[in-house]
Amino acid sequence: MFLARVFTFPRTGVLDPQGSAIKATVSNIGFKDIQDIQTGKYYEVRINACDVAKAKEIMKELCEKVLVNPVVEDYKFEIMEV
Amino acid sequence: MFLARVFTFPRTGVLDPQGSAIKATVSNIGFKDIQDIQTGKYYEVRINACDVAKAKEIMKELCEKVLVNPVVEDYKFEIMEV
Repeated sequence: MFLARVFTFPRTGVLDPQGSAIKATVSNIGFKDIQDIQTGKYYEVRINACDVAKAKEIMKELCEKVLVNPVVEDYKFEIMEV
Repeated sequence: MFLARVFTFPRTGVLDPQGSAIKATVSNIGFKDIQDIQTGKYYEVRINACDVAKAKEIMKELCEKVLVNPVVEDYKFEIMEV
């Protein structure tokens, strides 16, 4: 069994209104040390694969077919055996 | 400068409709090896702090005051120097 952690976030050049709104808010309420905030989505996926290469193959396909909108999102994932 | 990676996800016992919907979809389109999918939110926060202890203190306060809804969400964060 493998656990994949998938991170999706707005592509470079695509606005991150949620991140900008949070950044403005935290500055207003006194968090002066926060330099930047980027928001994204996070998935934990448990995969029943024979080896890590197969798990990576499944995850790449899952991200590109289901989890990620390639027009406005970039993604990365980490896989560990559990 | 420190980079914090914040993960928020539905508290145990709180329904994760998005995760359930994705899980049903991936099973229907042929991903038979996916055992479970949990969805959440992800933030990358850059903090200008004097040391990691101070960065952790700021992040804990930021999570509990702004980023996380404690009624329905759990959270964890990782901090690294960049």
